[in-house]
Amino acid sequence: MLKLIGLGLNVYGITLEGLIEARSSDKVYVELYTSIIPGLTLDILKGVIGKELNLLKRRDLEDGYERIIEEAGRCDIALLTPGDPLIATTHMSLVIEAYKRGIPVKVVNSASIISAISSATGLHIYNFGRIVTLTKVRGGALPLTVYEVVEDNLSRGLHTLILLDLDVEEGYWVSIGEAVEILEIMEARMGRSVFGSDRLVVGVARVGSTDFIVKADRLSKIKYYDFGGPPHSLVVPGRLHFMEVEALLCLAEAPRDLLRKS
Amino acid sequence: MLKLIGLGLNVYGITLEGLIEARSSDKVYVELYTSIIPGLTLDILKGVIGKELNLLKRRDLEDGYERIIEEAGRCDIALLTPGDPLIATTHMSLVIEAYKRGIPVKVVNSASIISAISSATGLHIYNFGRIVTLTKVRGGALPLTVYEVVEDNLSRGLHTLILLDLDVEEGYWVSIGEAVEILEIMEARMGRSVFGSDRLVVGVARVGSTDFIVKADRLSKIKYYDFGGPPHSLVVPGRLHFMEVEALLCLAEAPRDLLRKS
Repeated sequence: MLKLIGLGLNVYGITLEGLIEARSSDKVYVELYTSIIPGLTLDILKGVIGKELNLLKRRDLEDGYERIIEEAGRCDIALLTPGDPLIATTHMSLVIEAYKRGIPVKVVNSASIISAISSATGLHIYNFGRIVTLTKVRGGALPLTVYEVVEDNLSRGLHTLILLDLDVEEGYWVSIGEAVEILEIMEARMGRSVFGSDRLVVGVARVGSTDFIVKADRLSKIKYYDFGGPPHSLVVPGRLHFMEVEALLCLAEAPRDLLRKS
Repeated sequence: MLKLIGLGLNVYGITLEGLIEARSSDKVYVELYTSIIPGLTLDILKGVIGKELNLLKRRDLEDGYERIIEEAGRCDIALLTPGDPLIATTHMSLVIEAYKRGIPVKVVNSASIISAISSATGLHIYNFGRIVTLTKVRGGALPLTVYEVVEDNLSRGLHTLILLDLDVEEGYWVSIGEAVEILEIMEARMGRSVFGSDRLVVGVARVGSTDFIVKADRLSKIKYYDFGGPPHSLVVPGRLHFMEVEALLCLAEAPRDLLRKS
């Protein structure tokens, strides 16, 4: 059997079910490259799980998953992964391959930024449109999809969650400040005014950790705010319900004058 | 302090952090009316948490939360809630009230259908549009918002997650079969053809539990499938990536001929 077990959003983010399933497995793998759990190291995780762990690099999973599939055909293999498994689409090919070979698959869910963004900001999950990831600018090619998704969501009054890309192995992560600069460059390039410098945005860092930060401010101001280490996300709110306005004031210290206008 | 702690999707769906925070609280409340965790009773949950629990009814939380806020001002109060806290917008007013009175609030996230739908179906979280809840038909008034949200998402190739309403205290829940019938009535009423009887839909029951069911089929056929007890959800896929097609074949036993067409 192949078990995919979510580690959630912090050091103790694994569920009791995840812990039970990991402990009862013959071998436990862990990948820590698709996201960052603040403060989590392999040694700490060994302590939490109470078992020997085998760290997998990207190349082990993307090019060499044959060995893991083969092992899962013989005994119980667990793969621990940050957040909720399969939100990172990376691991779906592993699951599909196991299914094709008749190997049972079990997914143990845990918390993810996808739903936690709602408790962190107070913005209703029903008012979010499509989610998008802002990747690093490579070779000058701007990730224009992000701009188009935000524009499309805003046109129907919906909020956008922009996940900011990171790659632990390559050692980079996109900060809220960098993301805002990329958005500003895109706006200038597109010759449109979807954002404008006055637009209310919400920066969110390390959701689910004890030192998480949520701060709402104008686009032009938010980039000067110090959000600390990764992972970072950015929310562009659409039309706000009065309860969402109240929540942004309480949870995200939104400027009062800015909310009165929207 | 007021702690909102998610119970996730099954009996052992609470995270280690949730367990630690519940056990270290002076008093632990639990509400089990905003969703159903299959197999979870108050007695079982007492066993899992290892502590006395105080069950709250809807009226305790919606009309009489003054007492809880007042207690949270004096000592550490935990409120356990199904899924990820605050996905049900019901509890946000409690959080805002605590903030206004300067009472610290801590949210402990756990798994939610919002992200688990992706691992259950293999549909990419980035291809979902707005989420919507289909409520019970009351007094003949059709929940037309659902129809409009699906139509809007489909027009941009996006998937729709339709959560099917339930109320534990009132003792009702909407099944996938009932939901399909409501959609068919709406389609006839609207005089449009957003769904059609051939449309591929995915029925999902008890995600995260050991006896969960995921089944993809035509709209006209899915209503005859026995999905068992609640909670149920329905997904209307938009444009499918080839990896999503593979996933629906493996995970949801989608009919091959239906997928070749889309």
